[in-house]
Amino acid sequence: MQKKAIILLSGGLDSATILEIAKKDGYECHALSFSYGQKHEVELEYAKKIANTQNVASHNIAKIDVKIFNNSSLTDNIAVPKNQDLESAGQQIPNTYVPARNNLFLSYALSLAESIGAYDIFIGVNAVDYSGYPDCRPEFIKAFENTANLATKAGVENNKFKIQTPLIFLSKKEIIEAGFKLGLDYSNTHSCYDPIVKDKEIYSCGECDSCQLRLKGFSEAKKIDKIQYLPK
Amino acid sequence: MQKKAIILLSGGLDSATILEIAKKDGYECHALSFSYGQKHEVELEYAKKIANTQNVASHNIAKIDVKIFNNSSLTDNIAVPKNQDLESAGQQIPNTYVPARNNLFLSYALSLAESIGAYDIFIGVNAVDYSGYPDCRPEFIKAFENTANLATKAGVENNKFKIQTPLIFLSKKEIIEAGFKLGLDYSNTHSCYDPIVKDKEIYSCGECDSCQLRLKGFSEAKKIDKIQYLPK
Repeated sequence: MQKKAIILLSGGLDSATILEIAKKDGYECHALSFSYGQKHEVELEYAKKIANTQNVASHNIAKIDVKIFNNSSLTDNIAVPKNQDLESAGQQIPNTYVPARNNLFLSYALSLAESIGAYDIFIGVNAVDYSGYPDCRPEFIKAFENTANLATKAGVENNKFKIQTPLIFLSKKEIIEAGFKLGLDYSNTHSCYDPIVKDKEIYSCGECDSCQLRLKGFSEAKKIDKIQYLPK
Repeated sequence: MQKKAIILLSGGLDSATILEIAKKDGYECHALSFSYGQKHEVELEYAKKIANTQNVASHNIAKIDVKIFNNSSLTDNIAVPKNQDLESAGQQIPNTYVPARNNLFLSYALSLAESIGAYDIFIGVNAVDYSGYPDCRPEFIKAFENTANLATKAGVENNKFKIQTPLIFLSKKEIIEAGFKLGLDYSNTHSCYDPIVKDKEIYSCGECDSCQLRLKGFSEAKKIDKIQYLPK
């Protein structure tokens, strides 16, 4: 029987890449996305596109209905920082940090995994070209994996859960190169934290950390980014 | 300012007790309950009663809308075991186990805690008179706490989260005695996994593990349990 995996699918470039990596590794892929009051909820439309075009076995979108994510510029009435110096990104935790979000997303994935008999959970965290979030660091991932195996029947019975983070030590350039090698079409992905919808078209701002990291990655990989950016 | 705590409130005897303990310890208490497709969802009515009568600062009920909890007799069409030998309970994981549930509940609580500036999370797990669930063990709680402090901005900035488990080493008898000393009215609590509603009255089965542990606890504490049980 084909081994199963849960793929945390945000609709972004990283998660589209890990889905393709998991497929190449022979997994039956079950995608999981979240509606959590993010301003850039448009990313879920991209998650659906990715799930369809990349042929997942199932795609669930979990709605987090209680307002548990406060004081973040991704969910609250706080401005998303623009045109920041990328060099300084990663040195302090920005206001785009969402409280313990990856821990909650992985916890959902863990329950779904144990329910369907999957022991691998893929998450596209990255500790190189990233914004300094604590829940993207290898030490967090390791601790979560340890907790997962203590929390569960499967863990106790020695069917060990693994949190797979194939991108964790790659630069954005390397991630994009890996995706192109796998034949990925990144025009189905969305990265912007603060997108603008105009005449039913979605424009990325080009100025938030996430856009800047994406643009830098494409530029360094010498590839063309086909998504639409707001004209400067 | 009064320190804040999140209280995981199921509507059961244990969670009513930890809420009272947290209040006595001086916390401003924010209760959190879950609607997760449990057959005994009636427990949420009791959670509301407890939240009201025990004066919490807020009470949220989070709905887990994606079916992530499979193969459990608490959520699926599987019979809840009755009249089991309590001595053998705890030696193997019963089918009332819900996949990685406490890990998910604690993860919700963690995000809410960081959002509102609470650093203590109370959960009524018990490793004495319990059913052998992996996610009630001290080693799981310790691992979760460690993960919580790696996952979060507050953890990185040294505002340490603590998972408070005041009941973990108490017998059911001792829990009930502690509750009575705090003046708790356990008629507002619900323990049965398989309750029956008849003429708008709720009857506990008296035969599932949870009922048996409750009845044994009241009997050993020489207290009267005022909730209604199905006549044998």
